[in-house]
Amino acid sequence: MLGASGYAGRELCALIQRHPALQLSFATANEQRGQTVHAAGRPVTFVATEDAPLGDAELVFSSLPHGASREWVDAARAAGARVVDLSADLRPGNGREGVPYGLPELTRSEVRGAAVVANPGCYPTSVLLALAPLIERDLVAEGSAMIANSASGVTGAGNTPKREYLFGEVAEDYRAYGVGNTHRHLKEMRATLERLGSTADLVFTPHLLPVTRGILSSITVELKAPLGDAMEPWRQRFAGEPFIEVVGAPPRLRDVAYRNAVQLHALPLTGTARPMLLVFSAIDNLVKGAAGQAIQNANLMLELDETAGLL
Amino acid sequence: MLGASGYAGRELCALIQRHPALQLSFATANEQRGQTVHAAGRPVTFVATEDAPLGDAELVFSSLPHGASREWVDAARAAGARVVDLSADLRPGNGREGVPYGLPELTRSEVRGAAVVANPGCYPTSVLLALAPLIERDLVAEGSAMIANSASGVTGAGNTPKREYLFGEVAEDYRAYGVGNTHRHLKEMRATLERLGSTADLVFTPHLLPVTRGILSSITVELKAPLGDAMEPWRQRFAGEPFIEVVGAPPRLRDVAYRNAVQLHALPLTGTARPMLLVFSAIDNLVKGAAGQAIQNANLMLELDETAGLL
Amino acid sequence: MLGASGYAGRELCALIQRHPALQLSFATANEQRGQTVHAAGRPVTFVATEDAPLGDAELVFSSLPHGASREWVDAARAAGARVVDLSADLRPGNGREGVPYGLPELTRSEVRGAAVVANPGCYPTSVLLALAPLIERDLVAEGSAMIANSASGVTGAGNTPKREYLFGEVAEDYRAYGVGNTHRHLKEMRATLERLGSTADLVFTPHLLPVTRGILSSITVELKAPLGDAMEPWRQRFAGEPFIEVVGAPPRLRDVAYRNAVQLHALPLTGTARPMLLVFSAIDNLVKGAAGQAIQNANLMLELDETAGLL
Amino acid sequence: MLGASGYAGRELCALIQRHPALQLSFATANEQRGQTVHAAGRPVTFVATEDAPLGDAELVFSSLPHGASREWVDAARAAGARVVDLSADLRPGNGREGVPYGLPELTRSEVRGAAVVANPGCYPTSVLLALAPLIERDLVAEGSAMIANSASGVTGAGNTPKREYLFGEVAEDYRAYGVGNTHRHLKEMRATLERLGSTADLVFTPHLLPVTRGILSSITVELKAPLGDAMEPWRQRFAGEPFIEVVGAPPRLRDVAYRNAVQLHALPLTGTARPMLLVFSAIDNLVKGAAGQAIQNANLMLELDETAGLL
Repeated sequence: MLGASGYAGRELCALIQRHPALQLSFATANEQRGQTVHAAGRPVTFVATEDAPLGDAELVFSSLPHGASREWVDAARAAGARVVDLSADLRPGNGREGVPYGLPELTRSEVRGAAVVANPGCYPTSVLLALAPLIERDLVAEGSAMIANSASGVTGAGNTPKREYLFGEVAEDYRAYGVGNTHRHLKEMRATLERLGSTADLVFTPHLLPVTRGILSSITVELKAPLGDAMEPWRQRFAGEPFIEVVGAPPRLRDVAYRNAVQLHALPLTGTARPMLLVFSAIDNLVKGAAGQAIQNANLMLELDETAGLL
Repeated sequence: MLGASGYAGRELCALIQRHPALQLSFATANEQRGQTVHAAGRPVTFVATEDAPLGDAELVFSSLPHGASREWVDAARAAGARVVDLSADLRPGNGREGVPYGLPELTRSEVRGAAVVANPGCYPTSVLLALAPLIERDLVAEGSAMIANSASGVTGAGNTPKREYLFGEVAEDYRAYGVGNTHRHLKEMRATLERLGSTADLVFTPHLLPVTRGILSSITVELKAPLGDAMEPWRQRFAGEPFIEVVGAPPRLRDVAYRNAVQLHALPLTGTARPMLLVFSAIDNLVKGAAGQAIQNANLMLELDETAGLL
Repeated sequence: MLGASGYAGRELCALIQRHPALQLSFATANEQRGQTVHAAGRPVTFVATEDAPLGDAELVFSSLPHGASREWVDAARAAGARVVDLSADLRPGNGREGVPYGLPELTRSEVRGAAVVANPGCYPTSVLLALAPLIERDLVAEGSAMIANSASGVTGAGNTPKREYLFGEVAEDYRAYGVGNTHRHLKEMRATLERLGSTADLVFTPHLLPVTRGILSSITVELKAPLGDAMEPWRQRFAGEPFIEVVGAPPRLRDVAYRNAVQLHALPLTGTARPMLLVFSAIDNLVKGAAGQAIQNANLMLELDETAGLL
Repeated sequence: MLGASGYAGRELCALIQRHPALQLSFATANEQRGQTVHAAGRPVTFVATEDAPLGDAELVFSSLPHGASREWVDAARAAGARVVDLSADLRPGNGREGVPYGLPELTRSEVRGAAVVANPGCYPTSVLLALAPLIERDLVAEGSAMIANSASGVTGAGNTPKREYLFGEVAEDYRAYGVGNTHRHLKEMRATLERLGSTADLVFTPHLLPVTRGILSSITVELKAPLGDAMEPWRQRFAGEPFIEVVGAPPRLRDVAYRNAVQLHALPLTGTARPMLLVFSAIDNLVKGAAGQAIQNANLMLELDETAGLL
């Protein structure tokens, strides 16, 4: 595991430790090399990234920073390991196409047995799983804009010390950021929506919540025509999916915390001239939005049970 | 002051105590009658509502529950007092038209010298001040839907004990509620938007934040045509307004907490086929969203300086 | 499981669902009977307590309110079930002596194979495990007072709606309660300390923290004589204990959250005339302080592996 | 004002702006020089400390870091200004004796008209005002240890970005720090207690709370003899003090937040062999624990009304 000292990296270390078929062969963290932390009750001692015995691992997870990950993905590949890359470097819309995008509920067949997989961003996981059933069935009004307002807990920003993420700044606060369709995750979402066949635009406005974990996306969509049963597209599309829960009321963060789960809910809007739908999606940004999904992808790449270590 | 034991009622008691020209003649709270609390450092002893010496007051604030307030407004009027009603009973869209709506930045001339004023809801204050400049200038695309996602601190739900508002339920959580255009405040917003000349629909989705105070509204609007200067409509419309701050970045709750202020920000959206605008609005739900605005209205009704007791 | 709708009850349902050797045969909750909730991802439908098929269970957990639990413990015994009682009714100092006290690290031999066990309170678990090694070795100055300042998350107060536990009251607050040695848990602690041979007094001051889970106890003790190695008594006494972690720095709540663990740390105080020691103890009040410990006791009663379902 | 960019510095800027007799002539912040922030609704532009026009000010507040403040105090004195130093540099026990200690309720006569005053630390303010009435009357058992457990909000640690104060680390956590009588404020407390005539020891254990503001100290004291009326020493000693509130129940942080107030409460402990007392003290660490007290001292130094700008 490369880059193990961030919030997602630690979550992933803990998941690996508890996994029935995986063993943690190394964990790198340049600034904290030599330090020992506990993950799932077991000690993990960090080494420098350049000292990582890449060849010892059958599969390498990289949670290195965006921009810095790509070269290590190549090094791990050269050493013979499969790679799940949690950075943005290999994701759709980020310049290196052709790497399978690891959102298994949409791309399972590409991930199974793959050598390298780009693990999705937390916001894209939340938004894409909410929108895919509508887009695949061509239900969204052409030329309309799908309005996604998302709110994330602060672990999404990592654990590098920055003033804006101090407790004294975040507590009792709430604000939008990355506004005006400027967020780094937008191109990943747009590239994937296009691939799914979308002809609608996406407006994405992220917000910072005073919670540690979780993303809730509240998405307003204009439809071509009213739906008889507003939740049917998700129920049908995701039937049998082990990690997707189509729920009967707007989901709350607490119900997905610490779980590799997505909760989805949809309902029609009344009192609008055009037919409109509200779709909600809740995940734990560190689990289904990062480390849990990385394990899910690793399970598929290694042809293990997809749910191994995740229930 | 009728109904003084809730969060808005207490905030109002404190503002009255600090006001240079107002004195608190009584404060009612049926369940807590006989109890003494401190507001702005001075003791306030609650009496039962039926024991309120309505005739002693030149102006009565009613923060009684929705439905229960109307009869006491009438009683206070009969006793010769002016009334600021903080309940929904007299607000537009709630069945008793003709009472001035106390959103002074939009309705100042109706409020000045009035005998009874309906104090706006917290969400409508937040949303209407954000949208009015666009609607008054007829900039919104006809037939489009204005998408308002709002998030409120828990004091907006009052201090009646309910399980869903326990710390153990709200902390580390975030969720939507009153979804599908069902929130009680929607008719108040729609009635006012129509009166301003709106031909667009409103979609309003409130969320519950793990903070005590504050409302942030993030509103996406489709325009007839792109705007040259996205913030100009607000700067121009609210020039000289003492409580409106048009700010250069998306506002955060901390910057309006404990103040009778609205912070507004707007920016164009890139990458959409139709011209679209994001508008943000932040208030303290207990101040500009309730008690502070009630003082602002009282100042106008009594022909005092509108900012008295509020700076 | 009797009384399954509170925070501890739900935690216990989830632990039972995940336990390799236990199955949940029923869950009672009078006010919520007929409702279905999810515990550990599996549905649980509540029945009324009077409809509980007590005879179907080999072991019954009672998380009924204090005072109400005792009669149901008797009923479950009469129906042939073993019982772990999470209420205070059968705990030491509460009037019905002779029932084994389920603090396995101190009373394991009494719990193993027992028919009824009184599961300790959360504060007593925290304080007693911190003090036992000192008292058993007679290290505490005679006639001195051991000063325990504890701070607990709000789930310790249950999920019955009360104004004082609303988010709007607890957030950004901190206060002592049950002060002056009046807390209900004090007699349980005193009875147990006496049984361990203590000749010192206990001063216990609980505080309410704005967190959902966790108890930290900070205890100041006057010693008969300085200790060479301040942590040795705990290391030696708890060697091999699966759920006790003697750590090298003052513990923090985050490190024990969601785990059946106690973290203990001790250090000498400098600059005092008499030899004094600081002892810190951290637990998750819902796990080692309630549901996890109940499972630990059940494992011992049923002669299963003590750690089953808890790692 | 020197060092205006920290939490205490900003609070002080805002208090100066609202003060009826003070005007802010400059505000320094090296890292943020050139930036403009808002304090009490008015803009403040930071300059570098070395560019501060010290001679323009009648009185200079220094909120520079410990160690760095002393030389600027001397420079401001040389330029003819009076100085309130909020750093630890001139406080008792820190090596430069003879500077009046600005805890007006204990040292008012020394502060009045003084040229330089050392503004107390937040913890010492909290602890010393709680203990002074007992010590001045010689009520504490000789040779005993007064056990002070204090808990502070995170603004006490300043706004320099450090990982341990990130929201993701502090939320849902609670821990002790500076344990074993090692906290920097201890010598300030001990020197002052000795000066008051104390013959007892002090044990001081600070904790970090997941709140932004406030300090609660819970202090256990062994008395020479039981007190008839536990609160009488505080009521008598602090009668007429404008900022001290002797309250009838353990104080909570919310009741002192944003106010230059100390709330004190005392009660006897039952069930201990020796006569013991619990004393509680609550302040806002940024107001009575820093900026508010600095204004109180400035008012006395300039022979203004002591409460000017603070009610």
